[in-house]
Amino acid sequence: MALARGQKIGIVGAGLIGRAWAIVFARAGAAVAVFDTEPKAMAALDGAVRNGLEALAAAGLLTEAPATILRRVTLSSSLAEACAGAEYVQESVAETLAAKRAIFAELDRASPPACILASSTSTIPGSLFAEPLRGRARIVVAHPVNPPYLVPLVELVPTRYSDPDIVTNAKELLEDAGQVPIVLNREVEGFVLNRLQAALVTEAFRLVEEGYVSTEDLDKTVKDGLGLRWFFMGPFETADLNAPGGVRDYVRRYAAAIQRLTERETPPHPWPEELIDRIEAERRLVLPASKLAERAQWRDRRLAALLAHKLAEDRKGR
Amino acid sequence: MALARGQKIGIVGAGLIGRAWAIVFARAGAAVAVFDTEPKAMAALDGAVRNGLEALAAAGLLTEAPATILRRVTLSSSLAEACAGAEYVQESVAETLAAKRAIFAELDRASPPACILASSTSTIPGSLFAEPLRGRARIVVAHPVNPPYLVPLVELVPTRYSDPDIVTNAKELLEDAGQVPIVLNREVEGFVLNRLQAALVTEAFRLVEEGYVSTEDLDKTVKDGLGLRWFFMGPFETADLNAPGGVRDYVRRYAAAIQRLTERETPPHPWPEELIDRIEAERRLVLPASKLAERAQWRDRRLAALLAHKLAEDRKGR
Repeated sequence: MALARGQKIGIVGAGLIGRAWAIVFARAGAAVAVFDTEPKAMAALDGAVRNGLEALAAAGLLTEAPATILRRVTLSSSLAEACAGAEYVQESVAETLAAKRAIFAELDRASPPACILASSTSTIPGSLFAEPLRGRARIVVAHPVNPPYLVPLVELVPTRYSDPDIVTNAKELLEDAGQVPIVLNREVEGFVLNRLQAALVTEAFRLVEEGYVSTEDLDKTVKDGLGLRWFFMGPFETADLNAPGGVRDYVRRYAAAIQRLTERETPPHPWPEELIDRIEAERRLVLPASKLAERAQWRDRRLAALLAHKLAEDRKGR
Repeated sequence: MALARGQKIGIVGAGLIGRAWAIVFARAGAAVAVFDTEPKAMAALDGAVRNGLEALAAAGLLTEAPATILRRVTLSSSLAEACAGAEYVQESVAETLAAKRAIFAELDRASPPACILASSTSTIPGSLFAEPLRGRARIVVAHPVNPPYLVPLVELVPTRYSDPDIVTNAKELLEDAGQVPIVLNREVEGFVLNRLQAALVTEAFRLVEEGYVSTEDLDKTVKDGLGLRWFFMGPFETADLNAPGGVRDYVRRYAAAIQRLTERETPPHPWPEELIDRIEAERRLVLPASKLAERAQWRDRRLAALLAHKLAEDRKGR
């Protein structure tokens, strides 16, 4: 299913994630109708979308003026209005099973029968809220990375009830919107991205806990070492290119050593308070608490510049 | 200890790693003397260093002409000649304990008493080859990422016998050479970088083995998702900026969920042959074996362009 110019996309839930999705789809030319039960979120929408678009424009990432794109985003006065005539609705309400169950029951009633219903959930298996619904075959999880207009990966996770065609259509639509959707074969807690991240983060905490390295030096290991590869190659391509005979050769050479590095001397355990105190203290030396918000803005500017670089390089031949 | 222009650096072992180190130090203005017992490695040195420098020049990463830098690299006819008058020697010979023991015994005899002796080993604890030597206090592991002229991280790992001043001096010298050295507090197998990488790679293999995702989609998760953060922020800074109250707040909100994602249903086990066959087959669909070498060249060009972007952005305010 292609995303056509002017095609209607519904956004339900206008918090941080919903607003960011509105930017993604409006940037791609869709007519985006947004609804939130919270008037405050609705009131903040326009300014938030404008800010996001202006950051993209500043990094040279837009082909149209922010105001032109902003005009494609409209507020709907009801969920039914946001869904009417939509071919795809992205849900980003509160991250509780009760909230997801309630909203998907409503979406299943209010949207056209062929409309794809996608959830932004990062932690709740879609099957748990899709199961009781008549339209459960058209429900799929489309988990973004925050913010999706800067980080293109989207994890598409079919529920036990998803129609494979719906998943394929959602994938094509997200690709047309400029995202990079991957498709999981079945549900797994944390999906792929958060599981990979958790594996690395847990080893990072362990290395600091056991006193091998400071938090700052560990961060350098990632940003001045591993991150330079992982920015344009995943671990399988990295392995494939790291031995003359490709990935099979890599495994033959290095598998035993890699596996030895993941043997745990101590079983996993909750991070002790003393460790958190130490990490907090080390971080506050690098960045005072009063500068956290400013640094988060730096992060987003940096990410936009990086995305501009990535797109330019990808065009040269991925 | 500063790296002064014209200061002598010895490079012992002129394989892939030794040559790359020669580029690092010559680029920084040092007089680099290279020795290898293998005449073939010595014969290939000039061409290899020239190629590396030309790739750097093409990406706008040099402030001098490649020929000017190349003139600072000289061949020594003996280990003693490479070490004479050097303030720092970087060893990159074969990765066996026997080879390291033999070469460090020679280096300890042949180099000036105050010279720092650094090993490129990625797997052998420095204490094992430093222990019997009179000059063991001046031996330290300086483990690079390949190639160090494109990936700046260096892991400095003191042995049980290292003089802390030697480690500090090596750190300053490597910083002057444009690298990003981190300092481990004590030896651990795989150091930090390979342990972090192994944690992620092992989870990647597991997710593919259990059929959740294809190798190609897993790679996308890293390069179009996680890699966009990790290119300029490590996991601790990422966490610090991902909750309004900083890293302590992040741990309070997410630690339990993260730890749940690292619980293993099955104990670690060697990767089965069937899994390797599948990964190999999936990779060969993306990249035929005949194109591996060409793609490795693409990787290095891409990395150079990325480094140019990173340095420009870092200058704007890290």
